[in-house]
Amino acid sequence: MTNRPTAAMIIIGNEILSGRTQDKNLNYLATELTKHGVDLNEVRVVRDVEEAIISTVNELRKTHDYVFTTGGIGPTHDDITAPCIAKAFGVDLVADDAALQCLQDYYDGRNDDFTEARRRMANVPEGATLIENPVSAAPGFNIGNVYVMAGVPRIFQGMLDGVKHTLAGGDPLQSITVTAQIKESDIAAKLGEIQDANPDVEIGSYPYFRDGVLGTALVARASDDDALTNVADAIRTAVTELGGSISDD
Amino acid sequence: MTNRPTAAMIIIGNEILSGRTQDKNLNYLATELTKHGVDLNEVRVVRDVEEAIISTVNELRKTHDYVFTTGGIGPTHDDITAPCIAKAFGVDLVADDAALQCLQDYYDGRNDDFTEARRRMANVPEGATLIENPVSAAPGFNIGNVYVMAGVPRIFQGMLDGVKHTLAGGDPLQSITVTAQIKESDIAAKLGEIQDANPDVEIGSYPYFRDGVLGTALVARASDDDALTNVADAIRTAVTELGGSISDD
Repeated sequence: MTNRPTAAMIIIGNEILSGRTQDKNLNYLATELTKHGVDLNEVRVVRDVEEAIISTVNELRKTHDYVFTTGGIGPTHDDITAPCIAKAFGVDLVADDAALQCLQDYYDGRNDDFTEARRRMANVPEGATLIENPVSAAPGFNIGNVYVMAGVPRIFQGMLDGVKHTLAGGDPLQSITVTAQIKESDIAAKLGEIQDANPDVEIGSYPYFRDGVLGTALVARASDDDALTNVADAIRTAVTELGGSISDD
Repeated sequence: MTNRPTAAMIIIGNEILSGRTQDKNLNYLATELTKHGVDLNEVRVVRDVEEAIISTVNELRKTHDYVFTTGGIGPTHDDITAPCIAKAFGVDLVADDAALQCLQDYYDGRNDDFTEARRRMANVPEGATLIENPVSAAPGFNIGNVYVMAGVPRIFQGMLDGVKHTLAGGDPLQSITVTAQIKESDIAAKLGEIQDANPDVEIGSYPYFRDGVLGTALVARASDDDALTNVADAIRTAVTELGGSISDD
């Protein structure tokens, strides 16, 4: 938690908040950022409402190194992310020539009409850089420290894979998981002591019930290898001393 | 979106933000609240960090009728939700007699020690009401308009099922889904017109690709039956006029 860049995510869409759609992008983004050495610090899910989107973007882009948004960049009336981002940055929304060409080619290739609704998907805030959509042409975009991407998981993942190498990463966070046959509450006190003694290592404990056995996965995360190894050793010792066993590492 | 109560959700836990754990509670809460006539307006995922939890709780409990939190009420050092809620409300954290008894009975019944770490799970903000945990005894609690519940999905669901009948519901939101074999961008413009003409009905469009067929699920939601039926009819007419077909309703 030291020199790593920080990120926030904004999930835009009434369908998530009504329960109609189960979000799958949070977990993908979180996993990818963790591997890359970026700390995802906060996520917000907001409605397709202009004021909510603008104020959330403006709050989070000031307090984090990166902001990633998903959703609201399709062709329909409730897709208002692009104009909201333009307003948040105080710039015009403009039709991007490269995006228009890319969409035109896509629909030409399918003998399909490039309708007015589809042309809206080429509109981006002035000064934005396009993010390639490897699945269905309509691009995302990057402006300032904000990355605007699709909500459809397959497209979101394609877009993220295209931009993640451009992000500055901190020291990648390593982790060691000690899978212990011990109840979480039996090791809780000792774990607290180990955490207090090692503030640079993040220790999490995750109870599980598998094959009739109650156990706890104890996960240590740190960017410093030595600190991480020391904490993992301390955890293993604690498990053994408290009468638990370690099923795997 | 008229007379219905509003809600916010706070998901507390580093394991969600690191990607280690996939949240499953958002979708469950969203679905249950929608059925009950409560609008979930915003969700935030925050780290196990005192200031983040307190400021988020205090911001959202002022702007929503209900706030639901998940996570951080177990026995370990990173379970800090209860003391944070007490601080957010400016009250003491106290051991609750009923919670102590309930936990004592639970561990007695398993011939297990009621350790100091486990006793922490009986601590709640002064004035809070317990929320029953039908799975593993350690209770959640309600204080003011804030409902503090477990992160483990099975326990969260059990707790929510226990409290949801106590929530004031608005007019339950009805929905009609028109499943149409039409591309989203082909109906986008027309859908925008229907939405503009019917501000009290919320219209969503969700493209799908199934059995080799591209289509769009068009969902209208409203508390007024007549308004809903009119909009669904208008959508069906639009689909047909634009050359699409309706596969089911």
